[in-house]
Amino acid sequence: MQNIVRGLIQKSTSKIVLIVLDGVGGLPVDGKTELDAAYKPNLDSLAVRSACGLHVPVAAGITPGSGPGHLSLFGYDPVEWQIGRGVLESLGLGVELGKTDVAIRVNYATLEDGLIKDRRAGRIPTDESRKITVRLQEEIRRIDDAEVIFAPGMEHRFAVVLRFPEPLPQGSASIKDTDPQKEGMMPVPVTPETAQAGKVAMVVGKLIQDISYIIKNEPRANYILMRGFSQVPDIPHFAEIYGLKPLCIAVYPMYRGLARLIGMTAPALKGDLREEIDFLKANYNDYDFFFFHVKKIDSYGEDGNYPGKVSKIEEFDRFLPEILGLNPDVTIITGDHSTPSVLKGHSWHPVPVLLHSRYVLGDTVAAFSERECLKGELGIFPTVNLMPLALANAGRLKKFGA
Amino acid sequence: MQNIVRGLIQKSTSKIVLIVLDGVGGLPVDGKTELDAAYKPNLDSLAVRSACGLHVPVAAGITPGSGPGHLSLFGYDPVEWQIGRGVLESLGLGVELGKTDVAIRVNYATLEDGLIKDRRAGRIPTDESRKITVRLQEEIRRIDDAEVIFAPGMEHRFAVVLRFPEPLPQGSASIKDTDPQKEGMMPVPVTPETAQAGKVAMVVGKLIQDISYIIKNEPRANYILMRGFSQVPDIPHFAEIYGLKPLCIAVYPMYRGLARLIGMTAPALKGDLREEIDFLKANYNDYDFFFFHVKKIDSYGEDGNYPGKVSKIEEFDRFLPEILGLNPDVTIITGDHSTPSVLKGHSWHPVPVLLHSRYVLGDTVAAFSERECLKGELGIFPTVNLMPLALANAGRLKKFGA
Repeated sequence: MQNIVRGLIQKSTSKIVLIVLDGVGGLPVDGKTELDAAYKPNLDSLAVRSACGLHVPVAAGITPGSGPGHLSLFGYDPVEWQIGRGVLESLGLGVELGKTDVAIRVNYATLEDGLIKDRRAGRIPTDESRKITVRLQEEIRRIDDAEVIFAPGMEHRFAVVLRFPEPLPQGSASIKDTDPQKEGMMPVPVTPETAQAGKVAMVVGKLIQDISYIIKNEPRANYILMRGFSQVPDIPHFAEIYGLKPLCIAVYPMYRGLARLIGMTAPALKGDLREEIDFLKANYNDYDFFFFHVKKIDSYGEDGNYPGKVSKIEEFDRFLPEILGLNPDVTIITGDHSTPSVLKGHSWHPVPVLLHSRYVLGDTVAAFSERECLKGELGIFPTVNLMPLALANAGRLKKFGA
Repeated sequence: MQNIVRGLIQKSTSKIVLIVLDGVGGLPVDGKTELDAAYKPNLDSLAVRSACGLHVPVAAGITPGSGPGHLSLFGYDPVEWQIGRGVLESLGLGVELGKTDVAIRVNYATLEDGLIKDRRAGRIPTDESRKITVRLQEEIRRIDDAEVIFAPGMEHRFAVVLRFPEPLPQGSASIKDTDPQKEGMMPVPVTPETAQAGKVAMVVGKLIQDISYIIKNEPRANYILMRGFSQVPDIPHFAEIYGLKPLCIAVYPMYRGLARLIGMTAPALKGDLREEIDFLKANYNDYDFFFFHVKKIDSYGEDGNYPGKVSKIEEFDRFLPEILGLNPDVTIITGDHSTPSVLKGHSWHPVPVLLHSRYVLGDTVAAFSERECLKGELGIFPTVNLMPLALANAGRLKKFGA
């Protein structure tokens, strides 16, 4: 799909705003989903004037993580482009990654007589684990020619990035997880799965030795287990495929990190919706594609907090007129996946979407909700189709064939 | 898809009429699309008794040319079977093409001091350019063993077909466009892109020399630029795949040419709907598949003439009872793409379709329109699915598996 699209790109000054209400899709409680329950006059009236539908991020029944969810929205096949867990964890902890890096997701664990007694070191509290991680960073700066970067995380989790002096060939991070996934077993030895991974495996082996020596007297976190060894994928950039100059507006580091992987400009940004809107306005003239990420709706969904999720949808609705006031050629509002409060987590349900431009039928739905979007002119479709639709509505695609 | 279908074909005396209202899909003006605005009681009542839906000719967001649009309707994957621009242009100008031909799209241009001053020779008027093209045909009949056929076109455009004595291997027309696409540059030298293209390139080189010698004193059209060197694709024939005996009923040469590429019988036909209907009636007993093409709806759409497009839909509606009076087993009415008047051109929007047979649900839509077809039993589906549906409804497909 991206290959056909790439060959049809034409220049335009049009602007596209993609608003991702993270986890917006939901399920009913007493007959009403979170979107049904929310008072959101602006979203509803925009939906009436928009092309609506529901999109499927990966495939029927598949619950997407944030990585696949967003890659699909950006038009990348999420099965073809799988982002390693080490990379996602590191991006989420705010480490920027490049082609010379190997990223690893790490757990503190409790080792006793050489066997794993607790894979999570008793879910050691965050402030306690952070102290240990900071100490590790102070004592370990480098293994061989690799810089070692520690990124403290929540509870027993943290990330390590090995930064080598030269770009690494793809396959260099193919190393088996050292986590045996079961208590009572020995840690899995560091095992490269390809010839290219030998060099990194050697560094990892030394790193584990050094770390376990430093923390060996910790009461609980006296060992570490590593998972998701991964490199940044050699993924084509957004600008190169679509001819767009993209800006990422997101307050959570992981989404900025994901956006940077595909070449979006993604400056650090703090605050909430107010700051994001101001940032959009301040930069509106300098870009032509805006990925505008709204996190809190998902967070409340993950907590199973139905009224909280509803209130965050309502909050967004109050800000929406400011975005529409910029008069983008194409405005898309959707999620990267559904997060029904009743499930307290991501789900496989298709995600409601509205696409507003001058070139839609409109008048097929009465509100922005899961059930109404079923009546929309976009139908139920794979999420990767959204970018071509955005480009078409923005006048950025030539005709295919004569 | 065609491979599965091919293996399931069974004989039948049933008849299928595929009516292509070229560019019929539209977008609203004051809330109403062209189909909404048209008074078309026959189409609407047929839609109520039909399976309705919307089809996507190439892919989401992709605006199809007439070639891909029709190939999809005939069940051919339009990405797999791309018809060269030289071939389409020549078909459009009424030249019949075979396996020994290379077709080229040509522009008159203005050359000054060896550089392209105007790629379109000042959009020289059609009657002026036609005179030059006729003269070229008089003076050039043959280059080496290739017959040279000139087909005058509109303004600065025409087509050249090189007819060799023997079929050419695929790849023989892989020659770079000589049009540099920019003024102020030299014409691109004739460059074969494959080894097989050497022979044709040699003929083309001599042809350009001869032409430019003959027209060198023309005030504006003193040079030519060539594009879209192409051969008829080695595409399986309609009859061979579907076991149908197809007749093309179209007044515009390009559609007949396209139909002939896949082995349809496509006699020359002049006139308008009246003549097309009479032709259908006269030949109804001798064929079992009828591709009935209605051009004018698209033409008005391309002109941005909303009332004109509406009136052509209404005109077709008045003729529809005559077609239904033949009592075909399957009647399909749709377009090859949408041509909203507001866009003055083809668009990416899914195309409304109705399929009438004895074996449909029906009673899901109230009229034949974009929004009503959203409620239809066919949903939104890839255009290439239409032929298998037609065959199934015509009782021409066996069961798959036991």
